[in-house]
Amino acid sequence: MNDETTRGSRTLPTGERSLSLRREGRAPVKIDILRRMIRTGAHGRAQKLIERVHSADIAELFPNLSPGEQRTLIDLLYNTARAGKTLRELPEEILPEVLALIDDAKLAAIVARVEPDDGAYFIEGLPEDRRPSVLTLLDTKKRHEVERVLGSPEESAGSFMTTRIATVLDDITCEAALERLRTLGDQVEDVFYVYATNADGMLTGVVPMRRLLLSPPGTLIRDAMIPDPVSVHEDADQEEAAELVAKYNLLAIPVVDGEGKILGAITVDDVIDVIQEEATEDMYRMVGLGEEDRVFSPLSLSLRKRLPWMILNLATAFLAASVVGVFQDAIREAVALAVFMPVVAGMGGNVGTQTLTVVTRAIAIGELELTSVAKAVVKQVTIGIGIGGVTGLLTALAGYFWAGKPIFGLILFLAMAINMAMAGLAGAAVPLVLRRFRQDPAMGSGVIVTTFTDVCGFFTFLALASAFIEQLR
Amino acid sequence: MNDETTRGSRTLPTGERSLSLRREGRAPVKIDILRRMIRTGAHGRAQKLIERVHSADIAELFPNLSPGEQRTLIDLLYNTARAGKTLRELPEEILPEVLALIDDAKLAAIVARVEPDDGAYFIEGLPEDRRPSVLTLLDTKKRHEVERVLGSPEESAGSFMTTRIATVLDDITCEAALERLRTLGDQVEDVFYVYATNADGMLTGVVPMRRLLLSPPGTLIRDAMIPDPVSVHEDADQEEAAELVAKYNLLAIPVVDGEGKILGAITVDDVIDVIQEEATEDMYRMVGLGEEDRVFSPLSLSLRKRLPWMILNLATAFLAASVVGVFQDAIREAVALAVFMPVVAGMGGNVGTQTLTVVTRAIAIGELELTSVAKAVVKQVTIGIGIGGVTGLLTALAGYFWAGKPIFGLILFLAMAINMAMAGLAGAAVPLVLRRFRQDPAMGSGVIVTTFTDVCGFFTFLALASAFIEQLR
Repeated sequence: MNDETTRGSRTLPTGERSLSLRREGRAPVKIDILRRMIRTGAHGRAQKLIERVHSADIAELFPNLSPGEQRTLIDLLYNTARAGKTLRELPEEILPEVLALIDDAKLAAIVARVEPDDGAYFIEGLPEDRRPSVLTLLDTKKRHEVERVLGSPEESAGSFMTTRIATVLDDITCEAALERLRTLGDQVEDVFYVYATNADGMLTGVVPMRRLLLSPPGTLIRDAMIPDPVSVHEDADQEEAAELVAKYNLLAIPVVDGEGKILGAITVDDVIDVIQEEATEDMYRMVGLGEEDRVFSPLSLSLRKRLPWMILNLATAFLAASVVGVFQDAIREAVALAVFMPVVAGMGGNVGTQTLTVVTRAIAIGELELTSVAKAVVKQVTIGIGIGGVTGLLTALAGYFWAGKPIFGLILFLAMAINMAMAGLAGAAVPLVLRRFRQDPAMGSGVIVTTFTDVCGFFTFLALASAFIEQLR
Repeated sequence: MNDETTRGSRTLPTGERSLSLRREGRAPVKIDILRRMIRTGAHGRAQKLIERVHSADIAELFPNLSPGEQRTLIDLLYNTARAGKTLRELPEEILPEVLALIDDAKLAAIVARVEPDDGAYFIEGLPEDRRPSVLTLLDTKKRHEVERVLGSPEESAGSFMTTRIATVLDDITCEAALERLRTLGDQVEDVFYVYATNADGMLTGVVPMRRLLLSPPGTLIRDAMIPDPVSVHEDADQEEAAELVAKYNLLAIPVVDGEGKILGAITVDDVIDVIQEEATEDMYRMVGLGEEDRVFSPLSLSLRKRLPWMILNLATAFLAASVVGVFQDAIREAVALAVFMPVVAGMGGNVGTQTLTVVTRAIAIGELELTSVAKAVVKQVTIGIGIGGVTGLLTALAGYFWAGKPIFGLILFLAMAINMAMAGLAGAAVPLVLRRFRQDPAMGSGVIVTTFTDVCGFFTFLALASAFIEQLR
């Protein structure tokens, strides 16, 4: 079976013969065996071994092999026409170093054998100056296809659709459509939907495989199809396509151009990747991490990505510290203020972060449609007041026992309640405002909210204390 | 078309006629129209309106309707046999209040018309004391099916599989299998895979629809099938099933019992729901939120869920504060300590939270397989030292200018570097240790890490300062 030319099996179960390796034991053991085979030159046996493993499992071996071993493994995969499929399963962050081990001619041969979107994905993994030398080795048709994908907006529907779909005219019969499907054979990636078009290529409907099989053979496609199906524009964001597939429980969503002509389809397996990527992105952005910063990415990359963000963080920390600095005379006179000020600021930070998480996640999975924005904000502020009231009371008692002054407890209570109400407001408002201005609602929101709760917490607490400093001495 | 009895259309595109409503405008406008129709008793027109909208869109209307309007809408949906499908699309948190509006007889009729797993999902949405009265109204066969699902472990593969799959004996021909598929018709939910079994019902292989269509009619299933397919045990966690579907790009995964007999299959649309749920869960657990705490859930629920957690948080804040308390004499003598101590603790918290996010996400999406655990921890600690070194230097300069004493800068630098190294260690180790002890790696990890960085930050900084207090005065 030639996996390279039937990318379709990406959406089918395990194109490979068996998964026994995955089942027999954990990967590390197998790597040792494979590594030994590669080292001792037992390439025939290594080839037999990897033929029995799914591409997704082979991809996991790469980060644990030396460059030389990686090169041998690629050759073995290439010989069985599985190099493209396996490279496709590599994490995006690891791809460039593996591609660097493959020479231009071999890489062009791999690109020629995969779908244009996968080919474009490999080209994008190359340094800019190497791209033309690989592209020129492709035949004209393939090069144009790949360049079209490279030219579409990044993360757009058009850039990760498959063009190997089954389309039929809507005025033929179901029998004729089934016959056409048999003729198309392996040229089609997904055979769970057949897309119906008019004579101009405009998408008019979709026929699920089930209906095609069950309809009387003479039924016209037009009468069997679901008219006016959900579709997505080629320039739409991949996230929009993923949301539609998730919401309407689709297996694939057709991609159309501005005139409604069908260009391709996005399959559900790619949608799962997008959903996982977007979830990672949201979690990462809230704490100011770059997407490429993974457990396995090089140390230097993590440092380079995080340092500027941390220096920005430091600036906001100085801002909060300068608020404390303004009130240093009060602290000198009543040092209990220094003891309790992290409690006020920290608890506000917790409320803010929780609210931020609820609202950001609601925006991401479309839950905000289920309530009004104003209602959501009011609710979060009320929660802040409620939690601030209860924990403020407990803190007030602790403060009273510590300092022996009722007024200190009262100041603590007020500062906690005010800061947590503000934390609820900031946690809800920051992602909503970012979204309103068409920014990513998660972008750096964590640091904005905690800076706000720090500044607000220190200020409320220390300003109140300064006002009553006579009683606190 | 009867959606209630063809749950299959959940995996097919838009079982309904058209999505024009969704396209024409935003939901709020439509709710107003629908509400007016319901209020003025124009039920015929309301029925026509909702017939043109996808169940997933109708479900979004519920939270914005009054209970009376909700009841009318359910009746309208019930009349067109779409109540079950629409209820299935409601967020889990909203379901109970809607179910409370439906009487036992009608609810039993709805449960009877849907798949056992969906029926069980509705029963689980009822208060415990109401469940038996609905179950007894079902016929014996259906009741047993639903009770079987209710009896399987929560969030297990068995509890959310469909039993409406196509199985064939592996010794028949492809032609005979296609014929059987036509006979089964609407009784089958997914027709993209046909599952092959031996005479004992044991799963022996899977035949993708494509292969069934393309194979010569006389080919035996045994020769057309992919043998030994990926499958999942009925008691396995839903997350395991989701991971396999995502990793191997499947459209469905068969569910088997201990003997390898096929019981059903989990389809990819349900897997998408699981993936989104798990991502929400991870983000929520890191900041100590309960799953039911959504933007639209009642205020009282959010307060009830968050308060105990926040009181625990307060206790950890007191712990950090008591560290400050130990050093209050030093602070009184050098108040610059109070100004800079939030910087040391806060920057440590940032490094810790970032590291925690990288490692937690890596565990969740299986990226940790790509590197060794020890290597991952060492890397994160090194990042902490690197960032601590650079930001520590900047803070040292700021401290020197503020206090006018070089020793103060040196103390700040050392405290920052040490605390951030510890933050990298804690951020990486906490989720890994939680996982080692078979706990959720995200469970409350945020508060553990930030408590650690607060205590460690305050202690390192103030203890160093106390040692050099003579020079700081």
